[in-house]
Amino acid sequence: MNRVRERREEQRDKLVRAAEAAIARQGLSSLKARDLAREIGVALGAIYNLVADLDEVILRVGGLTLDRLDLALSAATEGASALSPEQHLVVIATTYRRFAAENLHLWRALFEHRLPEDKPLPEWAVGNQTRLFRHIHAPLSVLMPEAKEVDRTAFSLTLFGAVHGVVAFGLEGRVVGVPADDIDGELSRLVRLVCVGLRRGRSGMNDQP
Amino acid sequence: MNRVRERREEQRDKLVRAAEAAIARQGLSSLKARDLAREIGVALGAIYNLVADLDEVILRVGGLTLDRLDLALSAATEGASALSPEQHLVVIATTYRRFAAENLHLWRALFEHRLPEDKPLPEWAVGNQTRLFRHIHAPLSVLMPEAKEVDRTAFSLTLFGAVHGVVAFGLEGRVVGVPADDIDGELSRLVRLVCVGLRRGRSGMNDQP
Repeated sequence: MNRVRERREEQRDKLVRAAEAAIARQGLSSLKARDLAREIGVALGAIYNLVADLDEVILRVGGLTLDRLDLALSAATEGASALSPEQHLVVIATTYRRFAAENLHLWRALFEHRLPEDKPLPEWAVGNQTRLFRHIHAPLSVLMPEAKEVDRTAFSLTLFGAVHGVVAFGLEGRVVGVPADDIDGELSRLVRLVCVGLRRGRSGMNDQP
Repeated sequence: MNRVRERREEQRDKLVRAAEAAIARQGLSSLKARDLAREIGVALGAIYNLVADLDEVILRVGGLTLDRLDLALSAATEGASALSPEQHLVVIATTYRRFAAENLHLWRALFEHRLPEDKPLPEWAVGNQTRLFRHIHAPLSVLMPEAKEVDRTAFSLTLFGAVHGVVAFGLEGRVVGVPADDIDGELSRLVRLVCVGLRRGRSGMNDQP
């Protein structure tokens, strides 16, 4: 029984790794279950003994991508105790930009992939995504010492959305994007300006300028 | 000759309006030249006497969307001389959020549509996109009085990317997004914090905290 389960997990890993390589090469839109089945040497139908559907494969590839991003963020901020929270947040933002540039298709796939509206994201996939926010929480705690946990969590989502927006437009070469060579400088400026505001103790939610 | 040209422009308008309605209804991904041809009562091939290709149709629909966004931003900031630049920028950000929510498919289409890499964006489409930045330039000029024009332009792209990122994750109901009801509050916080930083005269590009 255990051997059967082990064998299945090995096969599933092969499937997910094949999908990862395919997305890295050509992007999410050309991913086909048929190609993956051929590549790992099983019949098309046999794939659905390994995973529920192609969405699960894509989410598992996303999990691998987020694991690697997690490692990259940890490595970049290893000596973080020597960094100010401002510097820490700038390092996180620019590491995110570099990771995105170096893993363009896999990074895009994280955001291009949408589940059907009636299908909730599985718990393990939610965990994959939220886990990374601890990288932002640590420096934000120093900058927002009096904020409630829920407020700090909300603002960490905001800060991530802001950084992601600048990175995404920039890397896609949009007319409305920052030129690729200037993205890190602009991220640094944006993050530092926000930090100046936070240091001044003005959450900005209620005060009139 | 003029009558022929007039007639062609009328037909092209009909085509673009039909595409606009189709995208508003079902999103960009289900747009088909064949359906549009049927809807305006011409043969499929005849469409290509009106436009170069489907990309042109989509860019022209984008132009209409941006025109309406421009009007919405103008209307929302009409009494702007009574607003501080901080308030002005918050109004722009929240008006952008509302416009996006109320025109979800058409707004998404602006960013989902990607030209093939070897195909440059036509001049008129570049103008459609960059024109809207004047809404940000006016209040930024007050907040960054000593910045060079090029620097202010770069930061207006950054600020737009940041606001867009927060709006996009929020409206798509992403796990990493701000809950829909909190988006305006978070946009206000983000913009005000940035403004505090700008008022303190720290561009943040070179200073160490």
